[in-house]
Amino acid sequence: MKVAFQGERGAYSEEAIIAYLGESVDPVPRPYLKDVFDTVEAGGADSGLVPVENSIEGSIVRTYDLLNERTLKAGGESVHRIAHCLITNDGVELKDIKKVYSHPQALGQSRKFLDEHNMDAIPSYDTAGSVKMIKNLGSKDSAAIASGRAAQVYDMKILRRGIETHSENYTRFLLVKPEDHDATGNDKTSIAFIVDHKPGSLYQALHAFAESKINLTKIESRPMVGTPWEYIFFIDFIGHRTDTNIIEAIEGLSKNTRSVKILGSYPQAA
Amino acid sequence: MKVAFQGERGAYSEEAIIAYLGESVDPVPRPYLKDVFDTVEAGGADSGLVPVENSIEGSIVRTYDLLNERTLKAGGESVHRIAHCLITNDGVELKDIKKVYSHPQALGQSRKFLDEHNMDAIPSYDTAGSVKMIKNLGSKDSAAIASGRAAQVYDMKILRRGIETHSENYTRFLLVKPEDHDATGNDKTSIAFIVDHKPGSLYQALHAFAESKINLTKIESRPMVGTPWEYIFFIDFIGHRTDTNIIEAIEGLSKNTRSVKILGSYPQAA
Repeated sequence: MKVAFQGERGAYSEEAIIAYLGESVDPVPRPYLKDVFDTVEAGGADSGLVPVENSIEGSIVRTYDLLNERTLKAGGESVHRIAHCLITNDGVELKDIKKVYSHPQALGQSRKFLDEHNMDAIPSYDTAGSVKMIKNLGSKDSAAIASGRAAQVYDMKILRRGIETHSENYTRFLLVKPEDHDATGNDKTSIAFIVDHKPGSLYQALHAFAESKINLTKIESRPMVGTPWEYIFFIDFIGHRTDTNIIEAIEGLSKNTRSVKILGSYPQAA
Repeated sequence: MKVAFQGERGAYSEEAIIAYLGESVDPVPRPYLKDVFDTVEAGGADSGLVPVENSIEGSIVRTYDLLNERTLKAGGESVHRIAHCLITNDGVELKDIKKVYSHPQALGQSRKFLDEHNMDAIPSYDTAGSVKMIKNLGSKDSAAIASGRAAQVYDMKILRRGIETHSENYTRFLLVKPEDHDATGNDKTSIAFIVDHKPGSLYQALHAFAESKINLTKIESRPMVGTPWEYIFFIDFIGHRTDTNIIEAIEGLSKNTRSVKILGSYPQAA
């Protein structure tokens, strides 16, 4: 099974694919999120695993936008713990390290460790790409911060695992594919809807959900690009789109909004 | 007046400071968002200009988190159009350019232009940092994508202005400082509040706002790190925290939520 992801070989998304779907999966790296959707739509992969939110950095709204624009559905969910690893060439010890390369977010999240060990943080465009770079340079006085998977992919050494300041660092991913998932009894659904930008419009839109006692797990709003008086909302909630109370709530929502699109139903992550 | 921002000299945030507050301001570059707050709190700058959302990439929730954790207030708002410039050394023409360096978001947003001109996109950690790099290399076959301000700061040439695929690319900034802004009659307010993760809790929380006919302009939710059954919401709305209907709504909200924090009131951006 081929599963596309955004990033270089060894990215956290690739690590999440293996943790979610097992070692037998064939991960397909693609440079941009949009390419992940293109590749799955063109049949170059069976599905794609795309990030939707991180517990520290927030939502990746590009993913919701793409789900809204494209025909692919959200058919699975995975929550992956982000454990930053300090990765070096063989023979390098902690005391040898002067410079540490990684994406600015990973450097920022590991700042306490870097400060305590007097290491200089050097921003780079990518976590896994930093591992590849110090490998190619054969550097003996530098390290990279990336996933454990990156060390495996590039055959490098993990000197420390879990150097992030806050261990509560999770990224939530959705599996995108041509069809969503059948009901399992423990499901979530993602939808998008558009409301007029006027007092009370969101409150009215949510009325049907409160009536049907549906538990919202996420709500995100943004202005519609190009139409300043409309807002698009992305909402996740517990339940499957074929459940009676969900069908009723979406009918109610449709009366109070300009448009509703079901992005998919999927088994809830553990 | 010193105004801190996150990024290198020539970053879009610096360009936004000049557009918002004028050429006489002294911009103070800081590596991380957290440093911007630290610098202002320590008196190293009078205020900081920090991004909260981009029309394409979405919210920068780190900023809302910092406003919630720290004592600084949101006391101003600015919406800045992001126009990506193709920047080169002197004497370089469009036909000479083989490689283009920039942050992956800027490369992604300029992809149509790069594809049409057969230019290779090379990801880098920073937009303005890419300009500095090709200047230092004296490169004659490469360009960087960054703000017009970056070309000015590093004394480089703007070969094309506005190469982004979608021109509706805006970033909204908040001015953070020790006190927020007095009422002007055309204000916005940002607040944070925490609700239990149960059906209808957001709907109940929003009741007071719908009653008082307050126009919400943004809503953003995320799980509380470490307490999985609570959610924090960040809401922006029209009005000043000293307006009678706002005072009433926040009183009503306080009855239905675990905690409410006013992040600041400020004149609405044009």
